[in-house]
Amino acid sequence: MQKIMNDPKNFVDEMLEGILSAHPKQLKSIAGDLRCIVRSDKIKEGKVTISTGGGSGHLPVFLGYVGIGMIDGCAVGGVFASPSAEQMLNVTKTIDRRVGVLYIYGNYSGDKINFDMASEMAEMEDIKVETVIAADDVASSPKGKEDKRRGVAGIFYMYKIAGALAEELAGLSEVKRIAEKVRDNTRTMGVGLSPCIIPEVGKPTFEMEDGEMEIGIGIHGEVGTGKSKLESADKITQSILDKLLIDLPFQSGDEVSILVNGLGATPKEELYVVFRKAHQILKDNSISIYRPYIGEFATSLEMAGMSITLLKLDEELKMYLDMPAKTPFFEQK
Amino acid sequence: MQKIMNDPKNFVDEMLEGILSAHPKQLKSIAGDLRCIVRSDKIKEGKVTISTGGGSGHLPVFLGYVGIGMIDGCAVGGVFASPSAEQMLNVTKTIDRRVGVLYIYGNYSGDKINFDMASEMAEMEDIKVETVIAADDVASSPKGKEDKRRGVAGIFYMYKIAGALAEELAGLSEVKRIAEKVRDNTRTMGVGLSPCIIPEVGKPTFEMEDGEMEIGIGIHGEVGTGKSKLESADKITQSILDKLLIDLPFQSGDEVSILVNGLGATPKEELYVVFRKAHQILKDNSISIYRPYIGEFATSLEMAGMSITLLKLDEELKMYLDMPAKTPFFEQK
Repeated sequence: MQKIMNDPKNFVDEMLEGILSAHPKQLKSIAGDLRCIVRSDKIKEGKVTISTGGGSGHLPVFLGYVGIGMIDGCAVGGVFASPSAEQMLNVTKTIDRRVGVLYIYGNYSGDKINFDMASEMAEMEDIKVETVIAADDVASSPKGKEDKRRGVAGIFYMYKIAGALAEELAGLSEVKRIAEKVRDNTRTMGVGLSPCIIPEVGKPTFEMEDGEMEIGIGIHGEVGTGKSKLESADKITQSILDKLLIDLPFQSGDEVSILVNGLGATPKEELYVVFRKAHQILKDNSISIYRPYIGEFATSLEMAGMSITLLKLDEELKMYLDMPAKTPFFEQK
Repeated sequence: MQKIMNDPKNFVDEMLEGILSAHPKQLKSIAGDLRCIVRSDKIKEGKVTISTGGGSGHLPVFLGYVGIGMIDGCAVGGVFASPSAEQMLNVTKTIDRRVGVLYIYGNYSGDKINFDMASEMAEMEDIKVETVIAADDVASSPKGKEDKRRGVAGIFYMYKIAGALAEELAGLSEVKRIAEKVRDNTRTMGVGLSPCIIPEVGKPTFEMEDGEMEIGIGIHGEVGTGKSKLESADKITQSILDKLLIDLPFQSGDEVSILVNGLGATPKEELYVVFRKAHQILKDNSISIYRPYIGEFATSLEMAGMSITLLKLDEELKMYLDMPAKTPFFEQK
């Protein structure tokens, strides 16, 4: 196991200690619990706040997007494991400004159970909570059953756009509406070229031979379309975009933002080789790219691979996508 | 070879096509050569311009730092190979604003030969050129022979600070002076946990077993202190900082910026585990951290590992380190 770590049991907490000591002006832990993280800067009165949470091992997802113009708090779980409802409630109570809290998180059963419980507990304390669940991975469930899809890198767009609207003091129903609009307009699919290792497990989550890949892989190594021969970058990109374009569907004349996301071990050079082909395919389909993002936005520890996300834009989404943001892991002027 | 690419021969050019199509407002190629990259925005008259260059495979190094508040142009070589003197000259001529050009690049023989040649050719065209060579890797040559050291991640600080001063229209001798000051105040050392594969070679640059590491490794896999047993994150961090602190030396009361840099395949989670320990060690030595950077700033394709860079600060360096920058790969408000 080629990892730079100490005792695997302390991996998450030591990572959090590192993050908190690196970014004290931006992030702090609350309730005496390292795994309950909120913004350090003062949250405006009257602001709808946004909370998220989920397993560790996906940086910048989830806590890396806590900050100005994005989200306000995050409950942090073990590697690939849900945080508890109590941790979510602690974050909720701390960030609440009496006008409601929106939960945005990925579509995984553990997270859903705990966030639902946190939501009920918050309501008992007179905190109004709404929820929008990211479910952008088209490989995980067919069209028509979008609510069964896993949430993957597309959650970045939900944080970015709902966060920008919330920063303008929009009401809870408005912030929820735009988060749902982003969810409905976002599609993602990935490819894995290597497994990753959960520190406390100490062996790969699955086996993959040299020369193999798995299209449609999830960010915890969930099965996609099954293993196949490793294809060229152009063929992989074409396969993924074929699936994404037909699903929404994205059509001639559409304007999209595209996110080419590295899963952890894939060099930025390769991501740009993918972007090159995606740009060509979209152009051939008369779909224009408005604001591309290329880099690591949602990872799976040291998994090799990448995902492509498309977000169909309109004027409203473009306006909030363009707004500035500043978090420890993402900065946009 | 688990890479997302097409024909290895086209890897660099396809990557560049991807970068140029993703960031047309920030970067453009000139002279009909994809490998000659300059800023797309208008360079101010009277500005000393900064050029760099080197082999591909290190993104964001080198071309990723071309942009506002950093550098103005870059000649791009093949993977781990120097660009040509002609390419460097083309970039130099395009960015020159008649007040001089500063070359900042890493201390590698191929790059030195070609940049020296480009410099001579530029002088023949009445372009004043000065050079400052990054040589921050303490593992590559002993103290007293700093001029033999390799340039690695510390070059980021030279771009950032000299670039900020140049953006204020300082003269060539001033920009050169501050670049030299950053060079003299910067020390780096890394550790490698896996090799990487040059696409056209198709096999690892060296062998490394599970459970091994190499402290002092270079960003092309150059030998450091030899292979040894993989130690804990805390021990690795201690070993590296022991070497860095004694070398400058950094002393009680100093203020430093620290860069914990991922080499390509190492998760951000691990970089923060390293930062946590580095923060403790520096605190124990009464050295304060002014502005930490944690992420991928200078990579070696998909090599697992990381490096730690320390920059000793004074008020002048802090002022220019703090200034805003905006390039396709680095943004700071």
